[in-house]
Amino acid sequence: MHSNCEVEKLVNSDEVSIEKESINRSVIEYAVKDLLLGLGEDINREGIRKTPFRVAKAFFEGTRGALFPEAGLDNTNKIGHGGGVGGLVFVRDIDLYSYCESCLLPFQIKCHVGYIPSNQRVVGLSKLPRVAEAFAKRLQEPQHLADEICFALHEGIQPEGVAIILQCTHIPFPYKDFDSNHEGWVNILVSSGSGVFENKNDDIWSDLFSLVKFRGIEKGKVVIKESLDDQCYNWCPSFKVEEIKYSPIMVNAVSTIIKSIGEDPTRKELIETPNRFLKWLMNFQYASNIDLKMNGSIFNGEVKSIIWSEFNVPFWSQCEHHLLPFYGVVHIGYYNSEGCNPIGKSLLQSIVHFYGFKLQVQERLTKQIAETISSLVGGNVIVVVEASHTCMISRGIEKFGSNTATIAVLGHFSTDLAARTKFLESIPSVTSFEGQ
Amino acid sequence: MHSNCEVEKLVNSDEVSIEKESINRSVIEYAVKDLLLGLGEDINREGIRKTPFRVAKAFFEGTRGALFPEAGLDNTNKIGHGGGVGGLVFVRDIDLYSYCESCLLPFQIKCHVGYIPSNQRVVGLSKLPRVAEAFAKRLQEPQHLADEICFALHEGIQPEGVAIILQCTHIPFPYKDFDSNHEGWVNILVSSGSGVFENKNDDIWSDLFSLVKFRGIEKGKVVIKESLDDQCYNWCPSFKVEEIKYSPIMVNAVSTIIKSIGEDPTRKELIETPNRFLKWLMNFQYASNIDLKMNGSIFNGEVKSIIWSEFNVPFWSQCEHHLLPFYGVVHIGYYNSEGCNPIGKSLLQSIVHFYGFKLQVQERLTKQIAETISSLVGGNVIVVVEASHTCMISRGIEKFGSNTATIAVLGHFSTDLAARTKFLESIPSVTSFEGQ
Repeated sequence: MHSNCEVEKLVNSDEVSIEKESINRSVIEYAVKDLLLGLGEDINREGIRKTPFRVAKAFFEGTRGALFPEAGLDNTNKIGHGGGVGGLVFVRDIDLYSYCESCLLPFQIKCHVGYIPSNQRVVGLSKLPRVAEAFAKRLQEPQHLADEICFALHEGIQPEGVAIILQCTHIPFPYKDFDSNHEGWVNILVSSGSGVFENKNDDIWSDLFSLVKFRGIEKGKVVIKESLDDQCYNWCPSFKVEEIKYSPIMVNAVSTIIKSIGEDPTRKELIETPNRFLKWLMNFQYASNIDLKMNGSIFNGEVKSIIWSEFNVPFWSQCEHHLLPFYGVVHIGYYNSEGCNPIGKSLLQSIVHFYGFKLQVQERLTKQIAETISSLVGGNVIVVVEASHTCMISRGIEKFGSNTATIAVLGHFSTDLAARTKFLESIPSVTSFEGQ
Repeated sequence: MHSNCEVEKLVNSDEVSIEKESINRSVIEYAVKDLLLGLGEDINREGIRKTPFRVAKAFFEGTRGALFPEAGLDNTNKIGHGGGVGGLVFVRDIDLYSYCESCLLPFQIKCHVGYIPSNQRVVGLSKLPRVAEAFAKRLQEPQHLADEICFALHEGIQPEGVAIILQCTHIPFPYKDFDSNHEGWVNILVSSGSGVFENKNDDIWSDLFSLVKFRGIEKGKVVIKESLDDQCYNWCPSFKVEEIKYSPIMVNAVSTIIKSIGEDPTRKELIETPNRFLKWLMNFQYASNIDLKMNGSIFNGEVKSIIWSEFNVPFWSQCEHHLLPFYGVVHIGYYNSEGCNPIGKSLLQSIVHFYGFKLQVQERLTKQIAETISSLVGGNVIVVVEASHTCMISRGIEKFGSNTATIAVLGHFSTDLAARTKFLESIPSVTSFEGQ
């Protein structure tokens, strides 16, 4: 039983001295200031004044697994409890997130862990997600993560075999001329096996796949890394975005962050990471060059009871508190003047993109969209933004399913409950901003 | 900004001295030993030898909110970030769990938090779940929890108003003559409002309900505590189970646990809690008195290619590692002898109940069910158990969606992949063990 305790200590404890962590944190804070300056931001404005502190904290919380290079289960004693037996044990749907080593953005993982106990011994079920989490909390790549979890559990449990299946989802890279919808989410399915699961064509894998088939997982869909050349395998969408020359100060700032969280920025997979991170970040430069042409007619007529509406306009943005993506959909309702046509979808989309591609907070985004549309249609506007925030999952808080709605109402909508309710209740109940 | 930091400290820090915690923990460990002895268990058997340690740890992790009676947001400075504005901010689907003050079992919560900022200031979104969580991590009752979250956020953010909606789900209390299915989950919907949300009939609530309607939440369904007498409001299913006289040693052991986690066992709502917890626990006494009559015929024929199967047989059990419930469904497949009828559903159910109502681990439960059925049908059996473990959510690990499948195969099924696959793939893909 002794080793059980050691695992807990290893996975839970914080072995880095407070002092060293605080030095590394302030190094990251300086690097983040360079990035904010590079984005054209005023680093003293209230909304982002504490952002360097928050980003450093988030990186430390999100990648603390990297600080335990040997993390895993102790293999000097077999751990587990008598009384268990034989057959397959399969823990499904463990929600994890990790950080993409190619671009530093968080990615989400549904992790499925199976093992076959040997020696009549089974391990406490919660050890499986705990070990998986320790390896997820570092800069990762899906296949490598699967292999590491598999190896650590095999060493620690000494079972007949371990099988890992990971469904990984990476947010797409938007770019300024990117068109409209949230296509481009990258989903990849990888697996890793040890012992009796070592041969992926073995019958024993079939039982696993039978038990996750209704989760959309089929054997044929699993990526076999060896069968692909390296270029093909690069799952991170940053590879598909064109290279730009970024300022050495900014590149250096990102390298510094990588180093401060305990990673080696000269490791092969990480050499280009600063550039790739900047491909993402520089979309949110303060002086956005999206061309916002607003040629809608100015409203001067009478309020009519027809509500024009546009639902599910997608957007991307970057949370100014944590420099992490948030994304979702915008629902827009307005009264238009008599005889006028509704505002074209592409204009609404441009307005949404214009205010999205900045360092933002959702509340301000909602208000800015509402005010801009108000200037086109004469003041009677309702805007609802529904968004998922990666800062809600990729830090201590880890609320995977949560999402945030914000509302701005102007003119008639602020006083007319019936109109507001009519609009709110007509929002399609399944909004499609979850990716996949 | 200063107060922001203090909130983090308050919510995250561990103000109880290590020494005091360790004394309280060992007090709980002794109390748990009394409970195990009362259940007729051998406290030195390997599976439960460390259970007192684990239960003490789980109680501390799960109720540490109780240690911060003043938890909340600092209200001496308005916190938040400039740039936000006006309209409603509504964070939905925050997964929480809490401990029922009536029976000490964990219950699950979908928490929805709305507020309307004042003074152009918005609070960081992750503060909302963080504060909600601080109040959930103690012995609670839904309406009281909603009121506490509401009050703390109102004091801390000083907004126009705060609105809380909680969907709470309590597992049913099984009892020995309880019949078959998982009916009896208790769902309750409560709300709390401050400022502009104080009057629950006000128009402003309508916007909120419009935005959660498609989650099955309607204004009419919200419990208004004041309008019910106390007896009606007791949502915990323990109230519906008959009182039995329990041994004073066991009652005292539960009181001691309540005291050790920082609660007052003489508080009105807690006086009967030890008895109600024992109503649950004593279902899992070692010498179960469920009558297991097995009158199936002994198999002596030839293996036929007809697989008889019974899917979704519900069960309840108690995890012997943490003394927390796990529950789910059992799928059973077997070859029966020629000419024989399949085993009756009620006999299968009795077998499942017999092995469920004990301190168990899922792996052993699976094997015991398989072996018992094997003795009836001659050895060719496959059993799959799918279960949710409350110990996976109500401790540090908090993997809300995860569930565990275990398989035991005997005889023909262990060698015939085709038969196994045929059975596994015929398991209904939506198994109904999630409650609600």
